[in-house]
Amino acid sequence: MQVAFLLYPRFTALDWIGPNEVLNLLPDTDCVTVAEEAGPVPNESGNIEIVAKKTLDEVTSPDIVVIPGGLGNRLLIEHEPLHEWIRTVHETSQWTTSVCTGSLLLAAAGLLDGKKATTHWLARDVLASLGAESVPERIVEEGRIVTAAGVSAGIDMALLLVQKIWGDEAAQAVQLGIEYDPQPPFDSGSPEKAPQNVIEVARAAAIAQAEEVAQAPG
Amino acid sequence: MQVAFLLYPRFTALDWIGPNEVLNLLPDTDCVTVAEEAGPVPNESGNIEIVAKKTLDEVTSPDIVVIPGGLGNRLLIEHEPLHEWIRTVHETSQWTTSVCTGSLLLAAAGLLDGKKATTHWLARDVLASLGAESVPERIVEEGRIVTAAGVSAGIDMALLLVQKIWGDEAAQAVQLGIEYDPQPPFDSGSPEKAPQNVIEVARAAAIAQAEEVAQAPG
Repeated sequence: MQVAFLLYPRFTALDWIGPNEVLNLLPDTDCVTVAEEAGPVPNESGNIEIVAKKTLDEVTSPDIVVIPGGLGNRLLIEHEPLHEWIRTVHETSQWTTSVCTGSLLLAAAGLLDGKKATTHWLARDVLASLGAESVPERIVEEGRIVTAAGVSAGIDMALLLVQKIWGDEAAQAVQLGIEYDPQPPFDSGSPEKAPQNVIEVARAAAIAQAEEVAQAPG
Repeated sequence: MQVAFLLYPRFTALDWIGPNEVLNLLPDTDCVTVAEEAGPVPNESGNIEIVAKKTLDEVTSPDIVVIPGGLGNRLLIEHEPLHEWIRTVHETSQWTTSVCTGSLLLAAAGLLDGKKATTHWLARDVLASLGAESVPERIVEEGRIVTAAGVSAGIDMALLLVQKIWGDEAAQAVQLGIEYDPQPPFDSGSPEKAPQNVIEVARAAAIAQAEEVAQAPG
């Protein structure tokens, strides 16, 4: 079973690593990083680099596709070659998935027209503007397409995929393997739960980060 | 504020990325990857490579030190140059931390002698054998040293650090920024919660992975 993780400049690393660490624990899975160009790809904040092992041409029929989010994908909303790859791999994939704003690329490629989908809470309007029915859920299933909300939601989504493909015991064993027994010090992980002042701080930080990324060298 | 993430061959990527994505969202933080040699470092299962930006010599006084876990560190339990670096940076760090079996390296360096600490549930005995008082907690604070349990526990630990350093509102905003509102399909994320059959499956998978890593080329 091949799992293709699409990387692009300024993607969010946790969107990718969460599902990678879950799916990679299953037997006979080949989790591969793929990008338009192989080699180091900078993450959203530009402080780290991940090596993309394969080019798009080299990964043509993955069983699972995972599209992570990241501010860098705003430059790819009209990037037809990437959309073409997404549409092509979706033709034969068992599951086509996204984490965070990765769903914007699925929508831009035309896969979410009129379909329910989720994304990072700050991008819900953008997702709707691209033709999806944007819903504030952590995970949304639409046939073979599964979209997850912001960043850490990719871990939950990947566990759900494990459950569907390998069964309950496998999903529980992987959860135990990564000791996923969350105990955050607060309960402010969604805009439906966080206090208004926290929402405003998070929104301002996101706007500042978006400006920084927009001004970063290509 | 400089945050140093130690990388080494066959480390667990999520141990590192979890805290990186949390701490990197704070203003004026410089999250830097450091290794004995700069350049690509393979993760635990060898399917991805992360670029280490700095060598140990280049990072001598980080404010926060994060040591991730990973089966590769079993080869470093007697690797004195690395222990020397850990002891040196701990002299001036505000916080010296570990995720998962990263605590084995803290213990091997002598930082945990007689101190409470935690680790991945499968390595609790190993941690004790290295002189620490191994406790089955998700996060353990001992003065300036904070150890976290397996893999995903690094996210919770990093949020705790944000709370301590930047305050409640900042920690809540970061939690919202990464939409950390966990909804795993099961509640089997610790051996105290998982059914016995799941524990045995996870244990067998870990043993198989350890054998694979032990046989991998250096």
